[in-house]
Amino acid sequence: MMSRWKRLLIGRPMKSTEIEGEKLSKLKALAVLSSDALSSVAYGTEQILIVLMAAGFAAVWYSIPISAAVLGLLLILVLSYRQTIFAYPAGGGAYVVAKDNLGVPSGLLAGGSLLVDYVLTVAVSSSAGTDAITSAFPSLHDHRVMIALVMIVFLTVMNLRGVTESASVLAVPIYLFVIAVFVLIASGVIKYLTGGIHAAVPELGSTVSHISLFLLLKAFSSGCSALTGVEAVSNAIPNFKQPAERNAASTLVMMGTILGVMFIGISLLAYWYGIKPDPENTVVSQIAAATFGRGWLYFIIQGVTALILFLAANTAYSAFPLLAFMLAKDKYMPHAFMARGDRLGFSNGIIFLGIFSALLVVAFHGETENLIPLYAVGVFIPFTLSQLGMMIRWIKLRPRGWVSRFVVNTIGMLTTLGITLIFIVTKFSQVWMVFIFLPLVIGAFYRVQHHYRNTADELRIDPSQDKPVIKGSTIVVPVAGVTKVVLQSIGYAKSLTDNVVAVYVGFDDESIEKMEKKWEEWNPGVRLIVLRSSYRSIIRPVMKFIDTVEWKTADTDHITVLIPQFITKHWWENILHNQHGLLLRTYLMTKKDVVVATVPFHLQR
Amino acid sequence: MMSRWKRLLIGRPMKSTEIEGEKLSKLKALAVLSSDALSSVAYGTEQILIVLMAAGFAAVWYSIPISAAVLGLLLILVLSYRQTIFAYPAGGGAYVVAKDNLGVPSGLLAGGSLLVDYVLTVAVSSSAGTDAITSAFPSLHDHRVMIALVMIVFLTVMNLRGVTESASVLAVPIYLFVIAVFVLIASGVIKYLTGGIHAAVPELGSTVSHISLFLLLKAFSSGCSALTGVEAVSNAIPNFKQPAERNAASTLVMMGTILGVMFIGISLLAYWYGIKPDPENTVVSQIAAATFGRGWLYFIIQGVTALILFLAANTAYSAFPLLAFMLAKDKYMPHAFMARGDRLGFSNGIIFLGIFSALLVVAFHGETENLIPLYAVGVFIPFTLSQLGMMIRWIKLRPRGWVSRFVVNTIGMLTTLGITLIFIVTKFSQVWMVFIFLPLVIGAFYRVQHHYRNTADELRIDPSQDKPVIKGSTIVVPVAGVTKVVLQSIGYAKSLTDNVVAVYVGFDDESIEKMEKKWEEWNPGVRLIVLRSSYRSIIRPVMKFIDTVEWKTADTDHITVLIPQFITKHWWENILHNQHGLLLRTYLMTKKDVVVATVPFHLQR
Repeated sequence: MMSRWKRLLIGRPMKSTEIEGEKLSKLKALAVLSSDALSSVAYGTEQILIVLMAAGFAAVWYSIPISAAVLGLLLILVLSYRQTIFAYPAGGGAYVVAKDNLGVPSGLLAGGSLLVDYVLTVAVSSSAGTDAITSAFPSLHDHRVMIALVMIVFLTVMNLRGVTESASVLAVPIYLFVIAVFVLIASGVIKYLTGGIHAAVPELGSTVSHISLFLLLKAFSSGCSALTGVEAVSNAIPNFKQPAERNAASTLVMMGTILGVMFIGISLLAYWYGIKPDPENTVVSQIAAATFGRGWLYFIIQGVTALILFLAANTAYSAFPLLAFMLAKDKYMPHAFMARGDRLGFSNGIIFLGIFSALLVVAFHGETENLIPLYAVGVFIPFTLSQLGMMIRWIKLRPRGWVSRFVVNTIGMLTTLGITLIFIVTKFSQVWMVFIFLPLVIGAFYRVQHHYRNTADELRIDPSQDKPVIKGSTIVVPVAGVTKVVLQSIGYAKSLTDNVVAVYVGFDDESIEKMEKKWEEWNPGVRLIVLRSSYRSIIRPVMKFIDTVEWKTADTDHITVLIPQFITKHWWENILHNQHGLLLRTYLMTKKDVVVATVPFHLQR
Repeated sequence: MMSRWKRLLIGRPMKSTEIEGEKLSKLKALAVLSSDALSSVAYGTEQILIVLMAAGFAAVWYSIPISAAVLGLLLILVLSYRQTIFAYPAGGGAYVVAKDNLGVPSGLLAGGSLLVDYVLTVAVSSSAGTDAITSAFPSLHDHRVMIALVMIVFLTVMNLRGVTESASVLAVPIYLFVIAVFVLIASGVIKYLTGGIHAAVPELGSTVSHISLFLLLKAFSSGCSALTGVEAVSNAIPNFKQPAERNAASTLVMMGTILGVMFIGISLLAYWYGIKPDPENTVVSQIAAATFGRGWLYFIIQGVTALILFLAANTAYSAFPLLAFMLAKDKYMPHAFMARGDRLGFSNGIIFLGIFSALLVVAFHGETENLIPLYAVGVFIPFTLSQLGMMIRWIKLRPRGWVSRFVVNTIGMLTTLGITLIFIVTKFSQVWMVFIFLPLVIGAFYRVQHHYRNTADELRIDPSQDKPVIKGSTIVVPVAGVTKVVLQSIGYAKSLTDNVVAVYVGFDDESIEKMEKKWEEWNPGVRLIVLRSSYRSIIRPVMKFIDTVEWKTADTDHITVLIPQFITKHWWENILHNQHGLLLRTYLMTKKDVVVATVPFHLQR
């Protein structure tokens, strides 16, 4: 039943050898890995304008140089990540690069920020997509949380189905978005050049009285939030078709180019059209309305924008499980993140991401806007560490032409470090949490690794010395009456050893006498020990009795406690049975060194 | 650790023989059982006035005859429940009375409505108490759900501590409330008689143009919601000190008298003062303000009123577990509801009530006002059935003087039936749910009973014929490597039988070869079977292998599968281990007829 549902949702299981077929071509990789980066076009320019408007409309011309600066930063990031791809063809991104060159703590800092960040990405972008939908259909406003959760479930299932299949489904909206924005930019530029726009805009370079360096930096850092998602490609190299690193590098360049053109295009049009940010009407929406009027083209652009904001989450679904896998391989995260599921994806990572982002959406009632700065900091910390790592690497290895590469990474490091600091200074009230939970996450990494190491030490044996020891055996069978279950358990126990003892716990003299009489009458060839419980607990007297048995026989015998378990035909019938058995089992397992054998009794009706 | 916390919260365990000391004296019983009934004084009159205002201020004089009618109904209920107490000294209330005289289906209908009702009581009154608090401190409004939940947790813990202890804590606010309301009524009456009130009020008996019978009935039924909770005493007779039925009867009469005086007092003052219902200012608050001004006496009255609304939930905490116990004794509910906890209360009933009412509060965001009519219907259905049952009983038994008792119950039955119908007709949109979930609850009762009966049939043995059968034994040990855990499991298995086989599941040739070599080197004297899994599943190949073993040996041998389980030192380390073992165990238990023995491995570090 369960398994049929699983098939329907996720598809047939795939053999391990089918993994090569699941690898991504360049075009599919662009679809899977770029949605986060490209979707930022929908809000990047707007973020800059909102900050600048604090100094009045005259200041909006600064959006052009700031956009150019962001574009420059994008170029630096693409160049430096391209270098990383070739240096680390096995993939890795910030975690591997930082760990390799700066040491484990930096690696874990980068990895931890990214992991947290991917969870935030999914929460934020599913909420943003929901906002887009509820703006169009206000009657759905009360169901925002539900819509966001449905989207998260959809993405989780798509990704459990496997990478290529999710690529095939997701490619359509992403390419539609790219085409739509290019059509918009082209039409807008033509309209502007042919004199179709008559907006009064502040001239480039005109002096503005209220502007400050702080404000400009803040605007720049806000614009930089458009660059989140650029690192996705370098994390996901193992998902690419061979030659993986060449394909990854081309994909990165393609993505950077498309992002750059779209970003600067929207910024230019916004300036030429003299657009003011409006909480009720996004910048892209204003541009589209001014270019096409509110006709079907306008609605197509709005629709695919909403869609892409939704799908931005998908980048995290590719990146999170891979990163978790790498951390698990190094024993910083539970082994469970290393298991490939039926469809060859790292199912546990995908499910973990889905659950935690869903919890965030529920906790914030779908209003996750406040998490955006947090999320930007979470990206720029690993950016900086990764660049720094590459710098160290160039200095250490000094391959041919290393100086120019070193310069690229140095510029990148300084810029991303600067942006990180600007974020922390200008938006401390929204990002302080990072200083609490990053240490927590990193602490958890260390504790997990510590535990795995200790366990491995404890489990090691010397194959030539340590051989199985054969002992005697005593079996204890707690019984509640004379029934078929007891009959079966006693039969099983007697088949294994002659040292079998049945235990009965009674609450009053009457029930004890009755049981003793019944047992005598039945006479199964096993001694019955009767315990009296004044406190109505079954567990405590049994535990005490086993203490005694242990004290008497533990040196010579293995002690086994047989616990019958009813296997009901319907799941709900479980709540009608087995509570005492389960409790006893838990107590025995945690407190005692005895084997607990569960004898199933399948109820037929 | 857990157990120390439990001690601190709940107190030391008590012996079964201490139960007599936990029984209630009359005064304590009044405190525990009357909070629901008495608290309705806080809103009963108001409910009547709100309905009457629909016909204009001139209609408010009808509140006096209507209050008198409610008082009459109260008298009938008290008299008839008094008769029930003496007829059923073992306690029972509607479930027992209806089952006994009208048959099982009626009994379950009464019991089911009451159970659902008690959950609603807790949800509604914890929300109402929260409203009272947030009215006083508006800044707490955003935390309403949290406040209600804290209250539910508090009541749950108090009741887990035991009946008398919770009585000692809860008696104070309840008696404070009674004193406060009596002081208010006395002062108000004195003020009125000494001519201190000069309000223009419609004369008694003046004609009102817009009034209709429907409206009057609706007002009457609204007023009747003040009578919910009267049944609590008759349900709880087993909790009373000896002589239980005499004490219960006196408590019921005391409660009825106090409730009646307070209710008619408030209604009279409201009429004399010419008070109009106001959503921002309750009737009691208006009366108190008019009598004392907004001084400290006013605030005391408001404070204890808020407190009593909160504590109204406590009645349900006494009644629900007892009713659930009775249903469980008749096998209509899980046996778990029959177990007395450490402090001699029916802990599972108390916890169940706490959890479900908390879920309701969360689901309705603490706005449970809409549940009030539902809750009133849930009380009047069992009221009616209980009276009808008593009627049948008098006709059947015909004791001396049965006619007058029959008349009392007949009047009671007709009135409560009438009110039930009025509720259903006038507030169908709010009570229709009752027609969906009552059948569901009753269906569940029957299914539970059906299951328990079937199980008992299946488990029965013939002690003279059925004796334990001794067979051979085959033990299967899934292994993941050559470690101390495997050493221990193999040692245990070999101590029990010579038929031991180890199974290893490998995903690729390399790991399989490596394992085979290691095993040979170690040579523990047990054959290793190696399975290859192309789908990376460990469960499926092992299950298939066990199929084969079953097919070969099930006739002659018991088959046991040994699964090692790591017992970690810290609970969180559990997520780092045991997933495969747990999954394999679940599959084996549900699908196969093999014994699963869990060998604990206690990690020391």
